[in-house]
Amino acid sequence: MKVAVHILWTPDEKSMERLTSLLHPDVEVTTGENVEPGAEYEILVSGRPKREAMTASSKLHSLVIPFTGIPQITRELMKDFPNVAVHNLHYNAATTAEYAVTLMLAASKLLIPFDRAFRQHIWALPRQSNQSTFLEGKTVVILGYGEIGRRVARACRGLGMKVIAVRRSASEKVPEGADEVHPVGALEKVLPRANVLQIALPQTKETENLIGSRELDLLPEGAILVNVGRGTTVEEEPLYNALKERRLFAAGLDVWYEYPKGPNRGAGKPSPPSKFPFHELDNIVMSPHRAGWSEETELRRFDYLAELVNHAARGEPLPSRVDLVLGY
Amino acid sequence: MKVAVHILWTPDEKSMERLTSLLHPDVEVTTGENVEPGAEYEILVSGRPKREAMTASSKLHSLVIPFTGIPQITRELMKDFPNVAVHNLHYNAATTAEYAVTLMLAASKLLIPFDRAFRQHIWALPRQSNQSTFLEGKTVVILGYGEIGRRVARACRGLGMKVIAVRRSASEKVPEGADEVHPVGALEKVLPRANVLQIALPQTKETENLIGSRELDLLPEGAILVNVGRGTTVEEEPLYNALKERRLFAAGLDVWYEYPKGPNRGAGKPSPPSKFPFHELDNIVMSPHRAGWSEETELRRFDYLAELVNHAARGEPLPSRVDLVLGY
Repeated sequence: MKVAVHILWTPDEKSMERLTSLLHPDVEVTTGENVEPGAEYEILVSGRPKREAMTASSKLHSLVIPFTGIPQITRELMKDFPNVAVHNLHYNAATTAEYAVTLMLAASKLLIPFDRAFRQHIWALPRQSNQSTFLEGKTVVILGYGEIGRRVARACRGLGMKVIAVRRSASEKVPEGADEVHPVGALEKVLPRANVLQIALPQTKETENLIGSRELDLLPEGAILVNVGRGTTVEEEPLYNALKERRLFAAGLDVWYEYPKGPNRGAGKPSPPSKFPFHELDNIVMSPHRAGWSEETELRRFDYLAELVNHAARGEPLPSRVDLVLGY
Repeated sequence: MKVAVHILWTPDEKSMERLTSLLHPDVEVTTGENVEPGAEYEILVSGRPKREAMTASSKLHSLVIPFTGIPQITRELMKDFPNVAVHNLHYNAATTAEYAVTLMLAASKLLIPFDRAFRQHIWALPRQSNQSTFLEGKTVVILGYGEIGRRVARACRGLGMKVIAVRRSASEKVPEGADEVHPVGALEKVLPRANVLQIALPQTKETENLIGSRELDLLPEGAILVNVGRGTTVEEEPLYNALKERRLFAAGLDVWYEYPKGPNRGAGKPSPPSKFPFHELDNIVMSPHRAGWSEETELRRFDYLAELVNHAARGEPLPSRVDLVLGY
């Protein structure tokens, strides 16, 4: 079955080669930022399409967002196109999960300040309190048990940790890789057991400010918080204070509160990620929203794209559909 | 069976409480740096005992080194006491293994330079090459498959890695947690497959300079090296050059070439760990020999000590005996 796909940017040569080599022969791909009215693509690939790209082809039936989640601006736009289905590419869930585990471990050993001091040839830091948290035998609560959360769980079990999954609505069956599962409504009950709180939630109305000062206070002494979902899930000021006052042992954060404006992440101009001076804290690993990125993962994006549009060529429904009401 | 144990230092109160609570009623413990001739202890606990402590008691039959391995000076001394058995406490193998996995992951994501730039509010580093290595599906070669190596293996499998164990002499049976096992003589054959080389070897004549420029050159492109064993296993200059020239993607090093002299790690005085400027490199996580240390692990040391001397009280042979010829 012939399928016309338009990618709303120009991928590099290596990526296009990879994509072409994997495509079903019936799939035809065009690329580029500009589309003309009267175009005939049925599938559009773009995270933040302009309205013109949505209306240029009357045959359009599916929008593929080439990552996980849906930007707010796209979610709004899509309300005007109820007949166009939205799909995600979860191509970097494994990469993001591995990064989340990296942040957890690096935070638990205070790797950053020890590296910094040691580069000045200082072997020991003033020992005010515990300087390294051993995770084996401890409990990790994974908030959001989707493509990323399940992979974080598997790695945590390899480290000898106990895994508690928290999902929007817990089915009775404990999902693969978890020791327990609870609905988000039972969060207060599980937080006191969370030696590590791993957050891998999408940005939705329900997840915004889900973790505030009340929730942070419920965590046990010496807890570690990792966020690779969206910054807005954790309230900014209570998080800063909990770290500054060492009520949290440490945090590993890849997602933030203020993002650089403009293309290319502000083209290298410094841009603070928060109104609070997180950068002054020693008990934090600061990461500029890069969990899901690696060179080989980017190539994988095109593997996933080929796999997805090949479904259409085979006359099968496209996978990973996004529910616009839930937002993921 | 009555057993007299002397600890050749004065542990803090919390540690002594823990120890006493776990001891067999027949075990009697004395502590302190000084011992008098005519003492009657049968087991001495010390990593670097003076000769006087070895001769003070004619009943001495066992020396317990309260960590893994045997310092060279102690190994020399023990040649004069062939009737005293030497034992190790592997109390921190799990902690060290977890730290080795932490170094591997932090190195693979270049966590250090990204954190440093981001604290200056810089979101992106100049992209010269790959900036993050994804480990799932990659191969880790674990050099030294003892108490630490086996635990590193388990965590690596949780990350979806393939595990190759390298031991002094490979038995035919693949040990628990590994996909393959090879003798150290076959190192040249396995190094080209090592996306990660994890080193957890003791310091012996056989391990010194085991990894030199020839071995580093055999590693595949983009490899990561982690060393939590002893610095001397990897030749200093070739390692520095391989990192500087980016033939290695990155390294995580907890063990070094020059150590501070004197008590308390040189009492905070800066002391370079190498004659090469490793501290100028971005593709390294520098850690001041702290892999095996955490507050809760220190308490565990006394759990292990109690467990070991209780064997004697029950009339059983002491575990974890050190072979003075092999050095571990």
